[in-house]
Amino acid sequence: MGFPVYQYEKSAEEYRRALKVIPSGIYGHLGPAEGCFVPVTAFPFFSDRARGAYFWDADGNRFIDYMCAYGPNILGYNDPDVDEAAAKQREKGDCITAPSIRMIDFAELLVDTVASADWAFFAKNGGDVTTLAVLAARAHTRRKKIVFFKGYYHGVAPWTQKIDYPGILEEDVANNIYVPWNDYERLAEVFEENRGEIAAVISQPYMHGNFTDNQLPAEGFWQKVRRLCTDTETVLIVDDVRAGFRLDLAGSDHFFGFQADLICFCKALANGYNVSALCGRDFLKNTVSGLTYTGSYWLSAVPFAAGIACIEKMKRLGLPKLLHEKGLKLREGLVAAAQKHGFDLRVTGMPALFYLRLADAAGDSAGKPPTPSFMLHQRWIAEMVRRGIYLTNHHNHFLNYALSDEDIDTTVAVADEAFAALG
Amino acid sequence: MGFPVYQYEKSAEEYRRALKVIPSGIYGHLGPAEGCFVPVTAFPFFSDRARGAYFWDADGNRFIDYMCAYGPNILGYNDPDVDEAAAKQREKGDCITAPSIRMIDFAELLVDTVASADWAFFAKNGGDVTTLAVLAARAHTRRKKIVFFKGYYHGVAPWTQKIDYPGILEEDVANNIYVPWNDYERLAEVFEENRGEIAAVISQPYMHGNFTDNQLPAEGFWQKVRRLCTDTETVLIVDDVRAGFRLDLAGSDHFFGFQADLICFCKALANGYNVSALCGRDFLKNTVSGLTYTGSYWLSAVPFAAGIACIEKMKRLGLPKLLHEKGLKLREGLVAAAQKHGFDLRVTGMPALFYLRLADAAGDSAGKPPTPSFMLHQRWIAEMVRRGIYLTNHHNHFLNYALSDEDIDTTVAVADEAFAALG
Repeated sequence: MGFPVYQYEKSAEEYRRALKVIPSGIYGHLGPAEGCFVPVTAFPFFSDRARGAYFWDADGNRFIDYMCAYGPNILGYNDPDVDEAAAKQREKGDCITAPSIRMIDFAELLVDTVASADWAFFAKNGGDVTTLAVLAARAHTRRKKIVFFKGYYHGVAPWTQKIDYPGILEEDVANNIYVPWNDYERLAEVFEENRGEIAAVISQPYMHGNFTDNQLPAEGFWQKVRRLCTDTETVLIVDDVRAGFRLDLAGSDHFFGFQADLICFCKALANGYNVSALCGRDFLKNTVSGLTYTGSYWLSAVPFAAGIACIEKMKRLGLPKLLHEKGLKLREGLVAAAQKHGFDLRVTGMPALFYLRLADAAGDSAGKPPTPSFMLHQRWIAEMVRRGIYLTNHHNHFLNYALSDEDIDTTVAVADEAFAALG
Repeated sequence: MGFPVYQYEKSAEEYRRALKVIPSGIYGHLGPAEGCFVPVTAFPFFSDRARGAYFWDADGNRFIDYMCAYGPNILGYNDPDVDEAAAKQREKGDCITAPSIRMIDFAELLVDTVASADWAFFAKNGGDVTTLAVLAARAHTRRKKIVFFKGYYHGVAPWTQKIDYPGILEEDVANNIYVPWNDYERLAEVFEENRGEIAAVISQPYMHGNFTDNQLPAEGFWQKVRRLCTDTETVLIVDDVRAGFRLDLAGSDHFFGFQADLICFCKALANGYNVSALCGRDFLKNTVSGLTYTGSYWLSAVPFAAGIACIEKMKRLGLPKLLHEKGLKLREGLVAAAQKHGFDLRVTGMPALFYLRLADAAGDSAGKPPTPSFMLHQRWIAEMVRRGIYLTNHHNHFLNYALSDEDIDTTVAVADEAFAALG
């Protein structure tokens, strides 16, 4: 077989060092605390450097990276245009007592670009802006309850966590209502049952949760949700932190043919420079003005300059279409490689942020661990990762502009070998 | 008189542009929403660039900056050593799918430097780590209530806000208990009244709230609080986001002769590069490992490299002592200038993050608006700012290493003129 199988000696050594001074050594999906059912021994734990579509781990192994730092890397690591704009701004200044005028330029660009944006408010985490959106909705409506769709992820603030997670109180989630995705009837019932009490519906543009096939909106679903929110004066919040700018530069609500009242951006906003944004419609601007919401680095100018360069480049490239095409080519190649070896690989979600699942076991529909096909899928993912294709087994993936046709061909060739190894 | 009085035509023009696309045009203390009683017309709204102890506004006016971006700027804007380390790391990579080993190096350095740190967990905002501290305390103790000292600021998460702030619910603050600063008797009573229910005490190392003279801990106060927390197995959280590294590189708890269980850092951690950290003692490490807590940019390597360079430089310089001396010199000069013109200027808090108040009106003790002396103080601050000395009237200030003796002399000379202008 052609592809070397990676070893992670240095990563393992660094992990032992990390365990002494960092809780769980590494946090996020590879941390033991998460219970993420990741075949962690197949993964490199620490990176050394990155460029374009690749990163190199602590052992010097190179990976074609389909996680893109969980989203921020949309143009390729160290994109020259974004880095140049950022370096130029850094020379002038970054985190200064008074905000840079770059903040205004960036807000103007978002207002020009994003269909639902009459204004923009900048922060740092995706969770900063989902929390801001909920505060704004409550302040505007003077109501308390928030409707979520099951499978949601809106950050790690206590109100977004589950009641059985450590440290979370019943008060944190007392005003949350959970409705199945795409179930408009149930949503309408919930509105009926909580008449005059629902401040907002918060939702990702489509269901790209973990451990389950991603689900696009059913025909007309978003339009009905939009109408219900309008009729009941409920704020419709789209959490576009994960999907933002990969489907449509005008916002994923625009892509699915409706208009959010508030839309949250973070990951792909500045190609890895640290910034998030809440954008929204005029009728909520004064409400947001009245909230107490600020942070130490929120006015930093370098991420604004990077964000401007990133959005301008995405526009020049017409990026979402390119990512869509790359995703289709990759899907076709992976599914064919699976079929060749007699496997049924399901690729769901939008091609630019696809979700993978091997569906080869009786009675397995959702892929929720620990079914036989889930374990088979894990083994396949492990074989891919050990051969330099950085995928994960339970989370959607992300494409970036630097990923070449040749990289996709390599990925498919590795998949062929990885399926053979399952044998 | 010698110092030119600044005009802000370009700032005003930019502000009009900002108002169209940003809620309240500018947020934070100069925004109209905050009700901060700042004489806003005396202030520049937007910056163009910064270097060392200075920034230049959109009109090209230069300011000696005593706000330091509200804290992050501790070595001087664009410190060459920090910027070089950051640039070197950026060349390798920043926000990558797998964390850089710089994260481990940074954690090791904090464990070596900070007395209460057996481990470090990194995030982005100060509020990310105050919230993490509270989650950890609740998870560890399986109790709900948190004791705050009145005048506190622990970020903008809903649990830190006030019940009458827009968007905040009673559930958000239902488990908060507020005790007057330095009032150990009341604290002990509260512990008695809520026996077995208090998860944590969270506090800044001394009271550096807004609109009031800062108050250092009373003799023995912290030692008694520490003993009470230990006796009742309550987690003692020190929020060192604002004061951290300006008093003592080993932590402000160390400075005041006690040991926190959890200590929160942000502002001065990396000289403006975007990172925050929760550090803590071994007995809480497993609890933190078990929490669900992560963010899109939290593993970015550039801020880790910057933080390492920043802390190493602060250690080489023995920075807190230098800042203390600068602060004493400044205080002496400002008080003398006030006296010369018959004014009583009170300088409170630690010299490296001093608070100012003109106390010239009968019956005015706290400086809370809108007493006559508060308005006089505002007028003086406005005269200072218009002459290039960036102070504020209701918030503590911050010193940085780049501030020279000559800058302090200039500040005192401007103060002389500004007091004369009050006449």
